[in-house]
Amino acid sequence: MTNQDLRVGLVGAGKMGADHALRIHERISGARLVAVADPDLDRAQQVADTAGARAQQDPFEVIAASDVDAVVIASPGVVHEPLLLAAIERGVPVLCEKPLTPDPKSSLRVLEAEEARGRRLVQVGFMRRFDAEYAELKRLLDTGELGRPLLLHCAHRNPTAPPGFTSQMMIFDSVVHEFDATRWLLGQELTAVSVRAGHSTALAAEGLVDPQVVSIETTGGVLVDVEIFVNCGFGYQVRCEAVGERGTALIGGDRGPVLHRGGQWGGAITADFRDRFGAAFDREVQRWADAARRGEVDRAAASAWDGYAAAAACEAGVQAQASGQRTEVELVDRPDFYA
Amino acid sequence: MTNQDLRVGLVGAGKMGADHALRIHERISGARLVAVADPDLDRAQQVADTAGARAQQDPFEVIAASDVDAVVIASPGVVHEPLLLAAIERGVPVLCEKPLTPDPKSSLRVLEAEEARGRRLVQVGFMRRFDAEYAELKRLLDTGELGRPLLLHCAHRNPTAPPGFTSQMMIFDSVVHEFDATRWLLGQELTAVSVRAGHSTALAAEGLVDPQVVSIETTGGVLVDVEIFVNCGFGYQVRCEAVGERGTALIGGDRGPVLHRGGQWGGAITADFRDRFGAAFDREVQRWADAARRGEVDRAAASAWDGYAAAAACEAGVQAQASGQRTEVELVDRPDFYA
Amino acid sequence: MTNQDLRVGLVGAGKMGADHALRIHERISGARLVAVADPDLDRAQQVADTAGARAQQDPFEVIAASDVDAVVIASPGVVHEPLLLAAIERGVPVLCEKPLTPDPKSSLRVLEAEEARGRRLVQVGFMRRFDAEYAELKRLLDTGELGRPLLLHCAHRNPTAPPGFTSQMMIFDSVVHEFDATRWLLGQELTAVSVRAGHSTALAAEGLVDPQVVSIETTGGVLVDVEIFVNCGFGYQVRCEAVGERGTALIGGDRGPVLHRGGQWGGAITADFRDRFGAAFDREVQRWADAARRGEVDRAAASAWDGYAAAAACEAGVQAQASGQRTEVELVDRPDFYA
Amino acid sequence: MTNQDLRVGLVGAGKMGADHALRIHERISGARLVAVADPDLDRAQQVADTAGARAQQDPFEVIAASDVDAVVIASPGVVHEPLLLAAIERGVPVLCEKPLTPDPKSSLRVLEAEEARGRRLVQVGFMRRFDAEYAELKRLLDTGELGRPLLLHCAHRNPTAPPGFTSQMMIFDSVVHEFDATRWLLGQELTAVSVRAGHSTALAAEGLVDPQVVSIETTGGVLVDVEIFVNCGFGYQVRCEAVGERGTALIGGDRGPVLHRGGQWGGAITADFRDRFGAAFDREVQRWADAARRGEVDRAAASAWDGYAAAAACEAGVQAQASGQRTEVELVDRPDFYA
Repeated sequence: MTNQDLRVGLVGAGKMGADHALRIHERISGARLVAVADPDLDRAQQVADTAGARAQQDPFEVIAASDVDAVVIASPGVVHEPLLLAAIERGVPVLCEKPLTPDPKSSLRVLEAEEARGRRLVQVGFMRRFDAEYAELKRLLDTGELGRPLLLHCAHRNPTAPPGFTSQMMIFDSVVHEFDATRWLLGQELTAVSVRAGHSTALAAEGLVDPQVVSIETTGGVLVDVEIFVNCGFGYQVRCEAVGERGTALIGGDRGPVLHRGGQWGGAITADFRDRFGAAFDREVQRWADAARRGEVDRAAASAWDGYAAAAACEAGVQAQASGQRTEVELVDRPDFYA
Repeated sequence: MTNQDLRVGLVGAGKMGADHALRIHERISGARLVAVADPDLDRAQQVADTAGARAQQDPFEVIAASDVDAVVIASPGVVHEPLLLAAIERGVPVLCEKPLTPDPKSSLRVLEAEEARGRRLVQVGFMRRFDAEYAELKRLLDTGELGRPLLLHCAHRNPTAPPGFTSQMMIFDSVVHEFDATRWLLGQELTAVSVRAGHSTALAAEGLVDPQVVSIETTGGVLVDVEIFVNCGFGYQVRCEAVGERGTALIGGDRGPVLHRGGQWGGAITADFRDRFGAAFDREVQRWADAARRGEVDRAAASAWDGYAAAAACEAGVQAQASGQRTEVELVDRPDFYA
Repeated sequence: MTNQDLRVGLVGAGKMGADHALRIHERISGARLVAVADPDLDRAQQVADTAGARAQQDPFEVIAASDVDAVVIASPGVVHEPLLLAAIERGVPVLCEKPLTPDPKSSLRVLEAEEARGRRLVQVGFMRRFDAEYAELKRLLDTGELGRPLLLHCAHRNPTAPPGFTSQMMIFDSVVHEFDATRWLLGQELTAVSVRAGHSTALAAEGLVDPQVVSIETTGGVLVDVEIFVNCGFGYQVRCEAVGERGTALIGGDRGPVLHRGGQWGGAITADFRDRFGAAFDREVQRWADAARRGEVDRAAASAWDGYAAAAACEAGVQAQASGQRTEVELVDRPDFYA
Repeated sequence: MTNQDLRVGLVGAGKMGADHALRIHERISGARLVAVADPDLDRAQQVADTAGARAQQDPFEVIAASDVDAVVIASPGVVHEPLLLAAIERGVPVLCEKPLTPDPKSSLRVLEAEEARGRRLVQVGFMRRFDAEYAELKRLLDTGELGRPLLLHCAHRNPTAPPGFTSQMMIFDSVVHEFDATRWLLGQELTAVSVRAGHSTALAAEGLVDPQVVSIETTGGVLVDVEIFVNCGFGYQVRCEAVGERGTALIGGDRGPVLHRGGQWGGAITADFRDRFGAAFDREVQRWADAARRGEVDRAAASAWDGYAAAAACEAGVQAQASGQRTEVELVDRPDFYA
């Protein structure tokens, strides 16, 4: 690795973009932010100022800038495709927040462009792969300490959904993390998705069906169920219990000081995903920057293929939700390029 | 309550019968065992001897004996119907191990006989209703401390299934407990059942599909999922997490001394259902005997109606298992007699 | 064991006496209450009525009554000696709530009377010996699974002390349980006691020094520390961590449903000692009654010798508290009668 | 903050020094290692190579080098004084691993030099102040959520002590962390120390008394007890329970996936201090480097005064250990410079 810092351009100065700007500026070794793009130039400026970078309105200028060695995309999913294609064309490494793109067809175009360029450049921001607990769960599965995996029970709970959050977003914005985590933990592809709903919480906005239970099947015959509950009210909680032939392992348990006070024992629940997965984001971006400086990609991270596979599962999930039927996940054959 | 002990006749001297004999003899106040019936007279004698009772071969003689005030039935489910009818006809209180009868039709005949007799006499041995943790979970649901219930996540795991245990038995011998617990916890009837299976554990006997995931729907729109895993290998574990509008509550967590030893923290898992639910059985039988001495039934316990409803859910469950389809649970209207 | 119930006389109709009356009447097999004595005859009558027994004012009449097979003493410790001596003289089994007597000298007189009578009759109500968690901790120590014991860390916390509770009572009413539990868990005698105090809680009554830390040494070189905190405010909590050469084991952890609600995870704390040790009391009295019907004593229970040893440790503890000095525990040689 | 990286010189290339080198090179933003000094030049070279820095034999040359903006001292405590004095004289910020110096007298000389230089330059490496759990415990104490603090119960356990580890080192190498943590958590000075020992583990080297129990008193009347057990065998464990007027809080509980396997539930124990406190070290050094680039010191970190106070407590602790007596901690008046 050279002693030269990786010069990063950031596209998107919303909540996630601002978080990444601070991360790169204050906590990541060997990388610094040089430019921030956002259609809202004031917002871009504000984020750029926190990191001593410049602000721009046009994201393509940032991607093309000669002092930008690598790009982080944190803009809405619907605009990812052209940004990714530009970065791939220029040949710069890119860390793209999930989703890769909103649907499998556009994801496939990204895959094709990357393969045509002949070099792996794209990483998708599935940060759970960098969480210490998930990593330990994967180790237990990979080493066979739990025996062959048979079931996964997942719960994904948010205290409240933002205004405008739809039932479909529960699949492609929330459960998409379980889609990727399942594929990664098991090393298997997803084959089918079903979605069930019962009575909704009174705390859900009108029209939102919340909670829902998503059932997933895999190529290895593992049954996965996911409770997605975006207005659970009490905090942010991500749990996963793997059941194998030799035992079970549960992650996402309760942490922090154990209090005894006022007739109750227990502790506080993490408030949001940054609170719960902050260290995972740090590790993700540090490893991404380290790999980028070496001219490589982080093989432990999610590739464009993983982004495509997640998009395909989301598409099946949204259809299953609408139809009330089990829906198969359809994937093209995996190119050797992503082996 | 009189100072006179309740004189109990026991029908069935197998594992469960022997357990009840010891319980009544050594741990229950105000009751004593006077007679034990079993087709295998030697076995009946052995159990009778542990409690200073007499042994008989014919169960109907025990039920009819003038010194028998109340009857415990712990024989196989297929022979329950005539025994129950005899006890009802004589008008003696009867505690019948689950199932009430193996199918809803025969259960209905028991209901009709009891109603015709004009007095509630039958209690079904769903002991979880007497478990301290289940009772506390019900209190949390009844008081509204969790808000309106939305989901139940259940896991029911046995270390190993006995030889000859079939996939159908996973429903009517094991999940039947979750059927009753769901009805009792929620105060709702079950409306439909689905069953899914994936890859089976290598530890399952040939032909047994294990684990399976059973999905239940209720009249109140609660979604219930049950992992039934009868060869999990590691111990006996019964968990239930209730998810409501205001929070969640999990029972069946890990107990006992917390050890730190050899690089590991944790403790031992209960070995079997008697280990886990022994105190619940004691409380069940004590309350049953107390009520019987007062000439009443324990209204907190499972009635013949509850036994019937469980049988109907089992029938639907076995069909769902065979067909791979969601199957509706069909119930007759609930008689006022069981209101 | 005969089929005849053990007829029990109860001396003392306060909180503890009423609790034992109910226990014997409703939950214990093979025993029934026949007489209740209390200086306050109304109170005696009230308790007797709950169990269909008769009330008397004179405890010695109850102990002498021809229909009393065994005696439970639940009166204040200062009057135990003559009651015990009367029961011993008559030769009836007696379950005496702690303390045996308030000081080692009077305890010794009870030991001498029992030995002179030639038969073990006295059991002291150290109920922790019958708690499932303590029993499991003792098993871990006895089997050597923790290796040789080196340290015990104990905490004994009450939500609030009753009016009039003194610093001395913190030793002989509260820590006395840890004195006995230490002796029983380790199978060692106590050799010295020290007591330290720091700043007192504002919730303590004026003059009460609360919390205090009691340090105990044993014949086997085990260091024991006990936090006694009788106005901790938040609930009733009894913890014990044993540290051995091969590992540690902690009992008294938190139980019951685990809730997630309002930003907090956790559960409720037991409210008082009956809530925490109710099952232990039941087991204690059941085993005592069973042994009494067999004409024996329960060898797992605390004997008069154990009551004496606890009284000696309390005497040393109160002296250590007053002097601020380490104080040795003085014991007579253990008679073979109590081997 | 300038965009210029802080150029760090490292003194000491042992286990801790190598760890810091990697940290600065790979995980810390805005700092880079330029020089590594160690009497063993090969070892210096090896560590320097991992971070693209140069190796030197003479630590004073590194401290004096014109391209060194700040210094990390990770050499043995006995040589700290002259290194610190050199760094202070040159006016460069210094992060000194604990202890500041091995005894309060030499620590005082460092304080005097720093005060004479007129600027705060020295930070002592008490990394627990940067641990998320300790920080949360301090927050609970500072906000009064636990009420006034009354007691701290601490356990500090290592799997095995390195060869040559002495009873005195248990105080000044191990318990020194609890001395600092107590002062920091409570915002109080230590007033006296006592040390008790019982039977030693068979796993301790000959002559080592292990475990020991250290009792500490504070200016605010808080009683602190510390179990120090450096051959506990089972893993690395640091626990602290704070007991206040309104409740208790325990940190250092068990983490990671909860497994159910082979009749046991639980998880793995952290293996060593880097495993447990790795994130705290990262945060400590990141904050130190950030402050150094701003020309400031991190006020949340341990100052030279804190290093001196810890040295004074260690001196009292070693005396208490030798004498078996309660020993007072003697401190000079705190200079305004360290207010």
